[in-house]
Amino acid sequence: MRTTVCRRATFNAAHRLFNPKWDEETNNRIFGLCNNPNYHGHNYTLIVKITGDINPETGYVIDLKTVKDLINLLVIEPFDHNNLNLDVPDFKYLNPTAENIAKVIWEKFRNHLGITFDIKIQLHETENNFVEYPG
Amino acid sequence: MRTTVCRRATFNAAHRLFNPKWDEETNNRIFGLCNNPNYHGHNYTLIVKITGDINPETGYVIDLKTVKDLINLLVIEPFDHNNLNLDVPDFKYLNPTAENIAKVIWEKFRNHLGITFDIKIQLHETENNFVEYPG
Amino acid sequence: MRTTVCRRATFNAAHRLFNPKWDEETNNRIFGLCNNPNYHGHNYTLIVKITGDINPETGYVIDLKTVKDLINLLVIEPFDHNNLNLDVPDFKYLNPTAENIAKVIWEKFRNHLGITFDIKIQLHETENNFVEYPG
Amino acid sequence: MRTTVCRRATFNAAHRLFNPKWDEETNNRIFGLCNNPNYHGHNYTLIVKITGDINPETGYVIDLKTVKDLINLLVIEPFDHNNLNLDVPDFKYLNPTAENIAKVIWEKFRNHLGITFDIKIQLHETENNFVEYPG
Amino acid sequence: MRTTVCRRATFNAAHRLFNPKWDEETNNRIFGLCNNPNYHGHNYTLIVKITGDINPETGYVIDLKTVKDLINLLVIEPFDHNNLNLDVPDFKYLNPTAENIAKVIWEKFRNHLGITFDIKIQLHETENNFVEYPG
Amino acid sequence: MRTTVCRRATFNAAHRLFNPKWDEETNNRIFGLCNNPNYHGHNYTLIVKITGDINPETGYVIDLKTVKDLINLLVIEPFDHNNLNLDVPDFKYLNPTAENIAKVIWEKFRNHLGITFDIKIQLHETENNFVEYPG
Repeated sequence: MRTTVCRRATFNAAHRLFNPKWDEETNNRIFGLCNNPNYHGHNYTLIVKITGDINPETGYVIDLKTVKDLINLLVIEPFDHNNLNLDVPDFKYLNPTAENIAKVIWEKFRNHLGITFDIKIQLHETENNFVEYPG
Repeated sequence: MRTTVCRRATFNAAHRLFNPKWDEETNNRIFGLCNNPNYHGHNYTLIVKITGDINPETGYVIDLKTVKDLINLLVIEPFDHNNLNLDVPDFKYLNPTAENIAKVIWEKFRNHLGITFDIKIQLHETENNFVEYPG
Repeated sequence: MRTTVCRRATFNAAHRLFNPKWDEETNNRIFGLCNNPNYHGHNYTLIVKITGDINPETGYVIDLKTVKDLINLLVIEPFDHNNLNLDVPDFKYLNPTAENIAKVIWEKFRNHLGITFDIKIQLHETENNFVEYPG
Repeated sequence: MRTTVCRRATFNAAHRLFNPKWDEETNNRIFGLCNNPNYHGHNYTLIVKITGDINPETGYVIDLKTVKDLINLLVIEPFDHNNLNLDVPDFKYLNPTAENIAKVIWEKFRNHLGITFDIKIQLHETENNFVEYPG
Repeated sequence: MRTTVCRRATFNAAHRLFNPKWDEETNNRIFGLCNNPNYHGHNYTLIVKITGDINPETGYVIDLKTVKDLINLLVIEPFDHNNLNLDVPDFKYLNPTAENIAKVIWEKFRNHLGITFDIKIQLHETENNFVEYPG
Repeated sequence: MRTTVCRRATFNAAHRLFNPKWDEETNNRIFGLCNNPNYHGHNYTLIVKITGDINPETGYVIDLKTVKDLINLLVIEPFDHNNLNLDVPDFKYLNPTAENIAKVIWEKFRNHLGITFDIKIQLHETENNFVEYPG
């Protein structure tokens, strides 16, 4: 039976939402306070969900220590205590909305996990706003 | 790729569970303490989940400010600090169980959102009891 | 050394805030939506904090099973799934604000616990509003 | 419309992860600290999710009181304040990973609920690690 | 009896920790990742605790609606979705550590509340780090 | 002004409550399920609260990185994934109740922090049971 194991982690980052092809007025209308040119920030909560078969020898779908190490390598090191727009190449040309951050994280995991695993990313930007990216 | 954005909100309401076609003894047997004729109440936590495509111009599936405004219009204003049985027409002839409240909220959102969006409602009645209505 | 042990519990109740000596307009101005005559409700979270000396034989300040039983007897049975204004004699002439509910609970515990214990009541009405009553 | 009702509960248990067919070195390499022969423990949080049709007479998919009673009978009584490896027959020959605990709980519910219900088990081992077993 | 009422709110902001009198190496040694010149950010959770006597007419220590409005005026409007170092005059010459942010908020409330009230500020910077400033 | 900084951490451990001077019947009567000779376990949540003056150069009472390192050294390394009764010398002759665990942790911190700091330990054994040890 396909079973899903989930690992939670947090990172803290600054960001700003805007579309460089638009003028300031349009950006303000669409993104409101999130377009502050001096940036604001969040404590992001990430949940990586990996679906596969339970290995009968270990009782694991995948060792969550492996998932923790991948989260550190792929997300915490490049994102934590950084400015997503300025410090993270993934968002040089991509607006760092929660949707796009989740998509970028999903792609990183897809490149590092075997094809027998399904991956789903849940990303909480605040206690009231979160997204789910199932690939 | 289809992506889901979620918005959380809370409202406080009184309610009572009963079926007017049944006698008091049957209502007490089926609904127990929830059938108290003087009502009891809850802090409901609502999560509205909307699935669609990420707009490449904004990086949004839908602006969560729009979802917040719809939650205020469709749920908070009519339900918050009210008695669901007495003050909310949706429950004049419908027992306000968590299942039915979620279904009513889903129908309100279905009527206000474009057909390209899928909608799922999660409603927490207590920290131990919650329901999911996917339409 | 004085040590504090704490026990958490929840109850669900309807209530309405108003002062029967005031006219409706004054009650609406002071209590706003909380004055809805049809009631609204909450999931209350109660934390009972009891301070005393650690018994060297047991390692306990007081057995939390005793505190749990007292919470059930003094609070859950009379308050849970009830209407505080109509069903609970303590609030027949006392406005069931969070402050007054905490005070009533403190007095009940003061009457049931030995004088060597200090008591503090914390009561959460919503996730954003809570009170502390230290006696 | 198919609707899901969910009930949360907690239990506290000791356990140890190891494969009796492997030598100590292999067990330590695969299970690390979780292989401590003196056991460690967790506050497990269980969420049982049951999907079915809303009964138009009650407004319930299933009475959550029934689900609560089943959780007590099938999970809390045999697992709570016990050592999963030593005290619970289900894990005499099965490694008590979160995946396997969830699977065992799913099977218990499958045997006790009518076939019209779908069942999904979510089990949190820590605040960072949890699993989902959909059967 | 002195009673404490508490109101919770959240705001999202960017910040950077550094002492302009120190060289870069010293700032990096003392503040580590928090000294990123491009800023990082947090979802701050604020709890304002106000202690006073229960007014026998209202049952309130102070109307929490008043506290909510003061939080919006004194904290949310100037801090939320801003860069504490660049956008908030309070931190032009003051390092925006959690301790200093709590102290600034306490002083704002002290200037706006009557002397009969005691004030205590609790500020959570992450789920693991928080401070309490009792004045 | 004296300010308090707080750091949260978690550890997972097995334990058993009993008094070796008592017979089995007395231990069962006093400690109930907690006296299971095969042990049970918890996810403990620890909050270390340190009170001192804000250093005007750093804006810190104490660097929370220092507190995090001390928690790892004094608590996580010796307690996490261990059996408190069998693996931790502090509890060889001391019943590992939440009260006593908090006291032991307080004493460890008292020995490692300068006398200008006040220390308070909060320890959560379950979501419903926690203790506070102020020294």
